[in-house]
Amino acid sequence: MYSPGAHLQTLRETAPLVQNITNFVAMNVVANAQLAVGASPAMVHALEEAAEFAGIAGALTVNIGTADAGWEASMVAAAQAAASAGKPWVLDPVAVGATGFRNRLAARLLALNPTVLRGNASEILALSGAVASGRGVDAGDPVSAAEDAARFLAQRTGGVVAVSGAVDFVTDGERAARISGGDPMMGRVTAMGCALTGVVGAFLVGQDPFPATVAAHSCFGRAGAIAAAAAEGPGSFGPALMDALYALTPDQFDAEAGIEAL
Amino acid sequence: MYSPGAHLQTLRETAPLVQNITNFVAMNVVANAQLAVGASPAMVHALEEAAEFAGIAGALTVNIGTADAGWEASMVAAAQAAASAGKPWVLDPVAVGATGFRNRLAARLLALNPTVLRGNASEILALSGAVASGRGVDAGDPVSAAEDAARFLAQRTGGVVAVSGAVDFVTDGERAARISGGDPMMGRVTAMGCALTGVVGAFLVGQDPFPATVAAHSCFGRAGAIAAAAAEGPGSFGPALMDALYALTPDQFDAEAGIEAL
Amino acid sequence: MYSPGAHLQTLRETAPLVQNITNFVAMNVVANAQLAVGASPAMVHALEEAAEFAGIAGALTVNIGTADAGWEASMVAAAQAAASAGKPWVLDPVAVGATGFRNRLAARLLALNPTVLRGNASEILALSGAVASGRGVDAGDPVSAAEDAARFLAQRTGGVVAVSGAVDFVTDGERAARISGGDPMMGRVTAMGCALTGVVGAFLVGQDPFPATVAAHSCFGRAGAIAAAAAEGPGSFGPALMDALYALTPDQFDAEAGIEAL
Repeated sequence: MYSPGAHLQTLRETAPLVQNITNFVAMNVVANAQLAVGASPAMVHALEEAAEFAGIAGALTVNIGTADAGWEASMVAAAQAAASAGKPWVLDPVAVGATGFRNRLAARLLALNPTVLRGNASEILALSGAVASGRGVDAGDPVSAAEDAARFLAQRTGGVVAVSGAVDFVTDGERAARISGGDPMMGRVTAMGCALTGVVGAFLVGQDPFPATVAAHSCFGRAGAIAAAAAEGPGSFGPALMDALYALTPDQFDAEAGIEAL
Repeated sequence: MYSPGAHLQTLRETAPLVQNITNFVAMNVVANAQLAVGASPAMVHALEEAAEFAGIAGALTVNIGTADAGWEASMVAAAQAAASAGKPWVLDPVAVGATGFRNRLAARLLALNPTVLRGNASEILALSGAVASGRGVDAGDPVSAAEDAARFLAQRTGGVVAVSGAVDFVTDGERAARISGGDPMMGRVTAMGCALTGVVGAFLVGQDPFPATVAAHSCFGRAGAIAAAAAEGPGSFGPALMDALYALTPDQFDAEAGIEAL
Repeated sequence: MYSPGAHLQTLRETAPLVQNITNFVAMNVVANAQLAVGASPAMVHALEEAAEFAGIAGALTVNIGTADAGWEASMVAAAQAAASAGKPWVLDPVAVGATGFRNRLAARLLALNPTVLRGNASEILALSGAVASGRGVDAGDPVSAAEDAARFLAQRTGGVVAVSGAVDFVTDGERAARISGGDPMMGRVTAMGCALTGVVGAFLVGQDPFPATVAAHSCFGRAGAIAAAAAEGPGSFGPALMDALYALTPDQFDAEAGIEAL
């Protein structure tokens, strides 16, 4: 039913241009993850050009990790421009729930109905209005606790919602899937969720959002597991992850994609 | 007398949340160093939320590497909020002495009495008003030349002052220690001092500042020496350092901590 | 005729201080590339100090990758200060041609007559007013298509123009050279062009701009080829490149520098 390999194949053939408005910690990692998986990243966030560029790029990702009021303006302008141009865009509400500014910003962006909302369980719970136990950028809740919140948010935005964790959960409000893969080592390396958001953005260009988001999670989890097996710790994991994303082949996903349709 | 292993053990058990206002070059490195050593980093510097978050985090680090007037406001607000909440905070006065702006900013932050001030010898000398021979971000003076300046600054701030170099020097104005370790390769990789500042911040949460700062330097130096032995150059040193920080165990420090009490 | 080894030797002996105003994605990479090759990087871009610091540093690099109006002011002020102080400076017009803001900014900086202009073929074509087929930050044109544009821009600015690609082209408007080296893997890792710009800046201090720029390209290409042979993919390529830049020795360039004088 799901075919991550086919989605990866499409990505590789189209090499889509993806605009990213992401945080300072993650910029280099997101760009390298998109390059490794086969896309062409562009980190364009200045208010002077962010909306204009959203009309050129095939997709947009918006990550609030280190946003401030100035960046908020760019994020809103770019998301609106992407939507107006019919381009898919992804919202990553990093650490929503931690501060009032972050809550207001994430709510404002969510109201623009992202094609995909991707976060950890605490972030999805916080956005849904539930009481979450996130602490800073790390999830304090299991993915399973956020499945209902994810369905609720998907129905509200009309988009796809993805919850990342030991087992990922992706839903469009009706369909849903769980994706296993990855490795606990990913929790000891910064910007892994941000990198996944970037990879999701790359998979969205010209592809159906729900299965493409499932495919992105499957590919990222597969690469994470391969990298963890090759790495000696969180430092060598980073380069190994990029090597693994680059080396993924579509035919690796036929037999054991690790996807459970719900 | 000093027990870096016990401090590392406490850090690992508490996994403290540390807020960092650091420079663009170092953000990813600082976050990964804190994760590797066992803490949970949060890069929160926007004026809209920096002070609010300082009340949530267990400690704060402030690094002026790429600051401007806007960041200065966030740094001051967060440092004041951390102090008001009784949270420890670390000041890293990168390249103080190089420009007038940098001198005024560092002096203003120093007047807020950081729990720990950490820099290289040239930076500590510049802050103490002595004539220093730093050039950009690199020290032009040996650590030994800054020991008196460090004692003077510790007495003035009532905090701990740490001078990093071939042999580190840490003092609280009365007690002092020298810590050997590390490797010259650390001088060929950017943001190593910034990463150490981040590690110091992680060790401070719930721990006595003077021995915790000594422990942080001991752990970082130990990991640096291990990484240098494993690396083929400055590029592979970076990942190897994170691997080594992650692999450190408290019992490694019983026999040969490399600490000389003065 | 060209002697990259001699230029590398000079760089290693003088260990020049280089100021960089570069983009968020590249800052860490540029700093590490300059450290690896033997220079001392300083990322100083705040308007409060950028021009002052340009008087201290031996050279300046300006990269517009993630610029906005605030950064534009710093770039102009620093470039003017460098020129006034007789210091060489490099302009990297990342993704010029993509947006109106980027075109205006690059044109304004070009009018300040950089010592070296370095870009990919699409960027050099866009700056010369030709119709270029760049897409985001990646070149859509071969280097050969931009040779005339490079000569034109070199004559207009009175400086050196370098076009990077499979075979690099460097000209001062009269003399010209092609430099082979590098590896296609460099196109799958972010900020490689930015890193080369940083390396060019390091080679310019106290050295004749045209042969020094040729030497910088030769060294970077050589290191890239060595790194690609050692790496398993784009992730491990990054650390391997820094290791290779660090391990380069002047005597490696006597026999096979890969430089064709035109």
